Amino acid sequence: MQVYETTGFPNPARVRAALAYKGVLEQVEFTEVDVMAKAHRTPEFYRINPLGTVPVLRTSEGEYLSESTAITEYLDARFPQKNLTGESPLERGQIHMMQRRAEAMVMDAVGAYFHHATAGLGPELETNQCQEWGRIQEATASRGFAYFNDVLAKHDYVAADRFSMADITLYFGLEFADFAGIDIPLTLSALAAWRERVKAILQSNG
Amino acid sequence: MQVYETTGFPNPARVRAALAYKGVLEQVEFTEVDVMAKAHRTPEFYRINPLGTVPVLRTSEGEYLSESTAITEYLDARFPQKNLTGESPLERGQIHMMQRRAEAMVMDAVGAYFHHATAGLGPELETNQCQEWGRIQEATASRGFAYFNDVLAKHDYVAADRFSMADITLYFGLEFADFAGIDIPLTLSALAAWRERVKAILQSNG
Repeated sequence: MQVYETTGFPNPARVRAALAYKGVLEQVEFTEVDVMAKAHRTPEFYRINPLGTVPVLRTSEGEYLSESTAITEYLDARFPQKNLTGESPLERGQIHMMQRRAEAMVMDAVGAYFHHATAGLGPELETNQCQEWGRIQEATASRGFAYFNDVLAKHDYVAADRFSMADITLYFGLEFADFAGIDIPLTLSALAAWRERVKAILQSNG
Repeated sequence: MQVYETTGFPNPARVRAALAYKGVLEQVEFTEVDVMAKAHRTPEFYRINPLGTVPVLRTSEGEYLSESTAITEYLDARFPQKNLTGESPLERGQIHMMQRRAEAMVMDAVGAYFHHATAGLGPELETNQCQEWGRIQEATASRGFAYFNDVLAKHDYVAADRFSMADITLYFGLEFADFAGIDIPLTLSALAAWRERVKAILQSNG
């Protein structure tokens, strides 16, 4: 398998964390995509992902997969140890529900703020900004932090009372928020405690 | 099981189509949520879905699931006949990848246009519009139509060369585009032919 990634970017970090958690990092060849040099906007890269985003996984069957949830689904079915996407029907539903919320309310909301309402990756790459939308999404992210703090005040993990891909997504969404400069209030103490727990899980599988 | 839905809305239609395809419609009690009367913005409804969206599924375990992909994952694991989310690891990855593209490039893009750049559901409900974002997403949807036409010129179905939840999502995304008044060019003939095929599949399982 081969993974196309960009070091320091939040979505590639999700796939790397899933691979590390399952103990299969050494089965993957990593290829750096220099986004700042527009390596993701070349005919070669559009052939492996028409949307021009990282990460992309080249599977052992030789097919290209993009979208972090889809890549995680593939990896979880291919390497069943240490399940990340749910085992019972109810777990599968709950984990996918919270995965989508972690994306829409945090990861993608922070991304919209970063790319639309800040300098983002710079004028060469941010050619279609909508400041007003970026500000709206900053507010969405702040509501997302409070929502997940409420969830984590009652549960140890984001979904189904167990560690899952939804924890990984929220974790890197919050890292992205720190990077983008969106304040995560210290009063959200359940969220802060959960971040420490997840950090320990990811480090012990790194 | 119980499904909270709003007749005529595109995302509830996805869940109804999945239930019909699997032949389990009669196992579900449907409850209409009168969105125009703000029935989705009541304390009772926020208790079953903090995001206030339809559809919501009350599972046979008595838990509430929202987000159409998550509901479909639950149903597909609970009723394995006529699989919709993929069986092999590669199918799972490909179907989830195209499901996400059908959402981001069509269903959600059309939704953003409808709610932000048109009157949408009216001034009582559309209280946080961003016209410029709606226009940007209208262009995203138009690119999405062309992208899926290219895919369907080479394949009979959206993902993994078989009928799946990604076909259902794109189908109702295009119905939503017709409703919202975004032009789907007649020159996209592969897309039009696929719509007829999917319509026949859904009608024969209705």
